Amino acid sequence: MTTTTTATERNKAIMLNVFREFSGGNVDILRTVVAEDFVEHSPGNPSGRDAFVEFLANARAAGVHLDLKRVIAEGEYVVFHSLMTRPGVERGEAVVDIFRLADGQLVEHWDVVQPVPDPPEVPNGML
Amino acid sequence: MTTTTTATERNKAIMLNVFREFSGGNVDILRTVVAEDFVEHSPGNPSGRDAFVEFLANARAAGVHLDLKRVIAEGEYVVFHSLMTRPGVERGEAVVDIFRLADGQLVEHWDVVQPVPDPPEVPNGML
Repeated sequence: MTTTTTATERNKAIMLNVFREFSGGNVDILRTVVAEDFVEHSPGNPSGRDAFVEFLANARAAGVHLDLKRVIAEGEYVVFHSLMTRPGVERGEAVVDIFRLADGQLVEHWDVVQPVPDPPEVPNGML
Repeated sequence: MTTTTTATERNKAIMLNVFREFSGGNVDILRTVVAEDFVEHSPGNPSGRDAFVEFLANARAAGVHLDLKRVIAEGEYVVFHSLMTRPGVERGEAVVDIFRLADGQLVEHWDVVQPVPDPPEVPNGML
């Protein structure tokens, strides 16, 4: 249990730090954490460190923004639940990102994305 | 840390047991875990114990099936990452469910759902 708790806290701290730095404009922080042979499961997004960092930098430049609502971590996994906004998408999209880390490096990523519907369809809010 | 770890393990065990029982046909198991004032954030789905249990029972009867791929839990939160299949949806949908528990009861739920695309768009698989 102690080992798992330690890994959980460490991996969560790594991903939160990367998120804060990247959101603040430090794109290069990604190179310190994304593994060279990073594996991507998000439809249309590239695997490999260089391609993935370029993809994220381009998304940021295009005005994509994540408003992080909750973080849930266990062992090698860190989960972000966020509202993603971008120019032209009225209510934004709900996103869950699942990151897998090994030895302090981001080695794998999955996500699920769904547009936020009209408020009457989700009276308690989607996030 | 010990308190969090204990809550994590307990809540994960509760949700995995409910999932197994419900998948095996025991719909009534839901009544033992869903709080009376359960709050739903999934678009189109109802809040409240009775309405939510009825909704899930109907979904099961309509052939909706979850193939659970990974479970990530921390404290009051339990996350399920699944492939959801139903008659008429060819490749199924990727789903993340986020459950919040309090005192052993399911009090809140969020989800994000996205259709699985054509294989060439996601060479490593979406799940």
